[in-house]
Amino acid sequence: MPDNRVVVYKGPGEVAVESVDYPKLELPSDVVDGLGIKKKAPHAAILRIVTTNICGSDQHMVRGRTTAPVGQTLGHEITGEVVEVGEDVLFVREGDICSVPFNIACGRCRMCNEGKTGICLNVNPARPGAAYGYVDMGGWIGGQAEYVMVPFADFNLLKFPDRDQALEKILDLTMLSDIFPTGYHGAYTAGVTTGSTVYVAGAGPVGLAAAHAAQLLGASVVIVGDMLAERLDQARSFGCETVDLSSGTPLPDAIEQITGEPEVDAAVDAVGFEARGHGKDAGEQPATVLNDVMTIARAGASLGIPGLYVTGDPGAADENAQVGQLGVRIGLGWAKSHSMTTGQCPVKQYNRQLMNMILSGKANIAKAVNATVISLDDAPQGYRQFDSGVARKFVIDPHGMAPAA
Amino acid sequence: MPDNRVVVYKGPGEVAVESVDYPKLELPSDVVDGLGIKKKAPHAAILRIVTTNICGSDQHMVRGRTTAPVGQTLGHEITGEVVEVGEDVLFVREGDICSVPFNIACGRCRMCNEGKTGICLNVNPARPGAAYGYVDMGGWIGGQAEYVMVPFADFNLLKFPDRDQALEKILDLTMLSDIFPTGYHGAYTAGVTTGSTVYVAGAGPVGLAAAHAAQLLGASVVIVGDMLAERLDQARSFGCETVDLSSGTPLPDAIEQITGEPEVDAAVDAVGFEARGHGKDAGEQPATVLNDVMTIARAGASLGIPGLYVTGDPGAADENAQVGQLGVRIGLGWAKSHSMTTGQCPVKQYNRQLMNMILSGKANIAKAVNATVISLDDAPQGYRQFDSGVARKFVIDPHGMAPAA
Amino acid sequence: MPDNRVVVYKGPGEVAVESVDYPKLELPSDVVDGLGIKKKAPHAAILRIVTTNICGSDQHMVRGRTTAPVGQTLGHEITGEVVEVGEDVLFVREGDICSVPFNIACGRCRMCNEGKTGICLNVNPARPGAAYGYVDMGGWIGGQAEYVMVPFADFNLLKFPDRDQALEKILDLTMLSDIFPTGYHGAYTAGVTTGSTVYVAGAGPVGLAAAHAAQLLGASVVIVGDMLAERLDQARSFGCETVDLSSGTPLPDAIEQITGEPEVDAAVDAVGFEARGHGKDAGEQPATVLNDVMTIARAGASLGIPGLYVTGDPGAADENAQVGQLGVRIGLGWAKSHSMTTGQCPVKQYNRQLMNMILSGKANIAKAVNATVISLDDAPQGYRQFDSGVARKFVIDPHGMAPAA
Amino acid sequence: MPDNRVVVYKGPGEVAVESVDYPKLELPSDVVDGLGIKKKAPHAAILRIVTTNICGSDQHMVRGRTTAPVGQTLGHEITGEVVEVGEDVLFVREGDICSVPFNIACGRCRMCNEGKTGICLNVNPARPGAAYGYVDMGGWIGGQAEYVMVPFADFNLLKFPDRDQALEKILDLTMLSDIFPTGYHGAYTAGVTTGSTVYVAGAGPVGLAAAHAAQLLGASVVIVGDMLAERLDQARSFGCETVDLSSGTPLPDAIEQITGEPEVDAAVDAVGFEARGHGKDAGEQPATVLNDVMTIARAGASLGIPGLYVTGDPGAADENAQVGQLGVRIGLGWAKSHSMTTGQCPVKQYNRQLMNMILSGKANIAKAVNATVISLDDAPQGYRQFDSGVARKFVIDPHGMAPAA
Repeated sequence: MPDNRVVVYKGPGEVAVESVDYPKLELPSDVVDGLGIKKKAPHAAILRIVTTNICGSDQHMVRGRTTAPVGQTLGHEITGEVVEVGEDVLFVREGDICSVPFNIACGRCRMCNEGKTGICLNVNPARPGAAYGYVDMGGWIGGQAEYVMVPFADFNLLKFPDRDQALEKILDLTMLSDIFPTGYHGAYTAGVTTGSTVYVAGAGPVGLAAAHAAQLLGASVVIVGDMLAERLDQARSFGCETVDLSSGTPLPDAIEQITGEPEVDAAVDAVGFEARGHGKDAGEQPATVLNDVMTIARAGASLGIPGLYVTGDPGAADENAQVGQLGVRIGLGWAKSHSMTTGQCPVKQYNRQLMNMILSGKANIAKAVNATVISLDDAPQGYRQFDSGVARKFVIDPHGMAPAA
Repeated sequence: MPDNRVVVYKGPGEVAVESVDYPKLELPSDVVDGLGIKKKAPHAAILRIVTTNICGSDQHMVRGRTTAPVGQTLGHEITGEVVEVGEDVLFVREGDICSVPFNIACGRCRMCNEGKTGICLNVNPARPGAAYGYVDMGGWIGGQAEYVMVPFADFNLLKFPDRDQALEKILDLTMLSDIFPTGYHGAYTAGVTTGSTVYVAGAGPVGLAAAHAAQLLGASVVIVGDMLAERLDQARSFGCETVDLSSGTPLPDAIEQITGEPEVDAAVDAVGFEARGHGKDAGEQPATVLNDVMTIARAGASLGIPGLYVTGDPGAADENAQVGQLGVRIGLGWAKSHSMTTGQCPVKQYNRQLMNMILSGKANIAKAVNATVISLDDAPQGYRQFDSGVARKFVIDPHGMAPAA
Repeated sequence: MPDNRVVVYKGPGEVAVESVDYPKLELPSDVVDGLGIKKKAPHAAILRIVTTNICGSDQHMVRGRTTAPVGQTLGHEITGEVVEVGEDVLFVREGDICSVPFNIACGRCRMCNEGKTGICLNVNPARPGAAYGYVDMGGWIGGQAEYVMVPFADFNLLKFPDRDQALEKILDLTMLSDIFPTGYHGAYTAGVTTGSTVYVAGAGPVGLAAAHAAQLLGASVVIVGDMLAERLDQARSFGCETVDLSSGTPLPDAIEQITGEPEVDAAVDAVGFEARGHGKDAGEQPATVLNDVMTIARAGASLGIPGLYVTGDPGAADENAQVGQLGVRIGLGWAKSHSMTTGQCPVKQYNRQLMNMILSGKANIAKAVNATVISLDDAPQGYRQFDSGVARKFVIDPHGMAPAA
Repeated sequence: MPDNRVVVYKGPGEVAVESVDYPKLELPSDVVDGLGIKKKAPHAAILRIVTTNICGSDQHMVRGRTTAPVGQTLGHEITGEVVEVGEDVLFVREGDICSVPFNIACGRCRMCNEGKTGICLNVNPARPGAAYGYVDMGGWIGGQAEYVMVPFADFNLLKFPDRDQALEKILDLTMLSDIFPTGYHGAYTAGVTTGSTVYVAGAGPVGLAAAHAAQLLGASVVIVGDMLAERLDQARSFGCETVDLSSGTPLPDAIEQITGEPEVDAAVDAVGFEARGHGKDAGEQPATVLNDVMTIARAGASLGIPGLYVTGDPGAADENAQVGQLGVRIGLGWAKSHSMTTGQCPVKQYNRQLMNMILSGKANIAKAVNATVISLDDAPQGYRQFDSGVARKFVIDPHGMAPAA
């Protein structure tokens, strides 16, 4: 039986590629013990990983902003080829190339029945919701690896209709496991529709994905704000307007210069709790972006908040922020009758639709986020580069299956 | 031309009934000047007020928690008989008995077109949304009075189908101008539906209205939390379960004792920014209730937040709270994928339906909130009693038109 | 291994109880061959049947109105106790008492992902959607029996929280497998909400369930129309108004006599294609009820159409009706901007909520439909009685587990 | 006071331009008498017409397929400049260039409150809903004219933000009064969203508008079916796939050749009751298109039906069709759990959004429908050409205000 190699957290600022056991058709001990269910997983499949991306939320762990232990395996943005299926996998078959939603879900609980796969009740004894390779998310092995075990495979896997076409478009399709649906979820829950004016806070990969999703949803104008020039250039490369938040211009004024009005119809927070204040030298101010989107969204707007807010942030500046209690301008939001949608994107609600957009050529997400292929061995370097703020989305290709650029 | 008498704010803790001019078919100067529109109001009607209620949000002004000036007229929960109509009032006629939504709306702007009458763009130059007799809400004369002018009367007024029936059920129908729709809005936006378990924070009139609305929406159990025994008794009087927040039992435990689970399907914040911490002697902690509802709502829940949060609270304990920036446990809400709906209830979205429930005998809101009739001259005493925490909803009857109890 | 006994169609007007093999954890051959999937079913469970109801749609087969072959096993309204589970059943356990949705669904296809379990793509090679014991619905063995095999058990079964409570309320809970959700689906898709006036066409069990569901959804008045006096009495027994369609009074007039208006806010067709014209001696007129609900629903209304319309009706009067092409007054519906929802109820969308209503005592569906317990051996007599139009819902109790009435 | 000139129906196949009185700020007698309301209309405005289009539904009258009397004024697709406003018009001003929704609505009734402006209760005594220049629609003067009176002007008019920009884009903006929103309504109510495969029946202007709307809503592929080669060419000119219904290939096969599947996710009937059977020589078969869309829409689909079905069609082939009762394959729709939305498009629900798409350059509706400018005097010739099946949308420019092409 072949080994498996996987990216592992080694301490603040450090990751390495290490060998671990080849995956088995078994549930993790945490889940088995915590929920009192069978270890044997006839519903599971093993995938040879075709591509697996580095995510901004991995950085939270690697920066030491979470309680992730040394040795934590990483990786939850997985696309792979099925190489083995359990006895109860009926509809997915060996050789299928599939996208793996980052949120692990059983397909059998009340939340999954309602489509809320981000808060499945049966995959994490600690709380609703699980993911591959993430702290406090059920103990599932990470997928920045050669192979990965996917439970409830018929439910979780999205099969691509044609293998050759899939490999050809793999740099777009690899974004279906997380950031494209996550960005779409942000735009969708912000109520973006035909004709909307939209502001997206943050030009990292999720922000860019939200901006592209807003275009697909029919926005008349999409404005992206960030403090990094390279990321703003990237946003402009596919038709977005931009606001440089380091410039000192108040955000409403900057928006008014673009659209003629200081408010937008819909706003997305694609940053989350590691937000910084405005201006070149501003330090971390975790509620800045939340308060920004309330400031510039018109009365009656919905706010999409795919940016991560956490319940525990040991590295935060004050004890309130350490437990996720932030200074939110709720009075302002209330006066404007805002509604807000928070939480992990339930990937399965959107990935089939977005796959269709990629395969028909209507969506060009790889270009929007500047997908950049690296080898598994180069993963540590990819983490460092991504952390430096480059306008790239790193796609690990552990088996050399992605086509040359 | 007869005078008009109206309740007026005279300084912290004090109101009086004073004489003012009889209303004219004209817009207030603030609106005319601020928006640059015609003063003459052929769309308006004058109503002889049949009933007009004292609202918890009036208390915010009377307690001196707002910037309301001495002389501010009060009253926005109005039911009346049409006594005069402008030339462009086509569908409402003299003699009609009508409910007046507290939110003044033009019926012609984008927000009104979308049903968002709580944030009408054409009735308040300062911000979206207006109300009768309220600070910063457009300068409209209050309706705890004998007469009131209602603009855009065909749009704003809800006519009761039968005059005699209306007077007979007036103590129920009077709740249609604000608290019954407001409570319903809270329960509805919290996603209460057939079979839901529901927690309502606050057993004041809005909380009790939310609880009754939850029953109408099909809740399987409705739990109301408060610290005042008399209000909890009132909640139990129409079939709610209750939690005494002064008891020291943690809220999740108290809920688990009732339903077997520490979480509910849907939660409503019917308190707002004047919230106090738990326990007998806790002082004001403005985000307590918001954080409570996030704690006890299940993952995936929607939170209805009809309780008022403000952008300016001169009397708040710290400078953040003074501008409405509160310590919200957004990390917790995010981890549970909560969504939240804030803002004033758009009364017109619900008042017709709720009128049907009252007239058919399915809703008994007067009983739920313990409606208590007083004269206009007794309004100052009503304010004092209400502020003391009695479990009553005071209904002013300026013309002696309500039937004897 | 024990035998199993099951109700079998023996030809027009005739059913019998016959012995068949005890169920195995295997898919039916039709499904295995048609879809090319594994026969072995580790996802399945065997249930000892606690209660199983006779349904109006069984009558379509028994009356010879379908292509059901002699020997067709019957029964799709099943409640049972789990006695055996496959290796991949993780969350349901032996001894659990569960409701079985009549629509068999895999929980893994696109339609199930969207909650559309009535048109699952993986359980019937002939068309989307399957059911136990029904012609053209996948070849699954019927559940008017002692035992039944339920595939995808974790997905399909709704577990009752407490065994004793379940047996105590079994006559209500047995309605969760089909008619209570089906009636609710009709009322819900007709847009019934707080304050609606509602017309339900048909006072058979589904019509009565729709009427009770409309009450739970907050209707201000529910009117039920039928031609059988006993069924109308039954409707009145739980608070509905009624219209006797055999009286000769035009339906709009009859409705106006009740509500003061000839139209209602929401209308439900709980009859389907075996409709008869109005008046005592009217023959079958399959579009009568569809056209009725368009006539009496107000402009802008939604129509809920849970009543069955079929693609093949060999016994129909003319060749159009034989292929399900009926004379629909679509011009009228269009002029009124109606929308319509057709098709089988996706039971899983509603059964948990309705279970909560039964267990909390808010729903009393057994009383509404006049549940009547019979033994398995009395099933043939139950069919005959039901066909005669009695106002009863027959509940077969094959193991004597239901409590004495 | 200047005269007004307007297109008038002169008998089957014939229209003429005739002089009539200049419009007054008064309601039509039919409305005043039928509803018992004031004749004087301080809420109205007079518009100098900038552009006014010939609509396919005008053709129903001109072909003699309705009860329109000789002398009926025509035209309901109006864009104009405000030249006079009543005393109660507050927000629209002289000089504003505005789009006029074809459905006249009061903005004050229950239907308008719900956004259902296509079935306003206060503008037509005969039935809910009204339009300019249309038989049985309230007696309002048509707008294929020099001037028109628009009642409830603040509510009905959509003001363009900039006069010069408006005139520059007038050939796109003129489509906002009817066909662009109508096509969008068809696509939207068919559930078209990101990634959908879509079939639009009919390549007349509404069909082309529905196809373009489907693109804006995110369709992955849009297929348009018709029997006229020129219209199919037009559909291909902006990126649609096409099916030639005169070719004899069964529709599901033709669709499968394009997408690989014989069904689509969403289907729109943009034809209505004047449908013909398939094949070169097929005669009129009024339910053909309805049954087509049920055939090729997947199970669970929604059908958008903007194509007109009428309650009275004196020219129909049989007596059922003469009252709008057609042979609908409801059994098929039911088996597939279809839902359907019928009726006139409520233009106000969409026109602001679509205006934003035009002004931002994201929508190019004039090109999609091949807008062709003619003078008012050429209107009779425009009617003849349009009736011949040319792939053009005729835009009348009565004052020579549209820019040269």
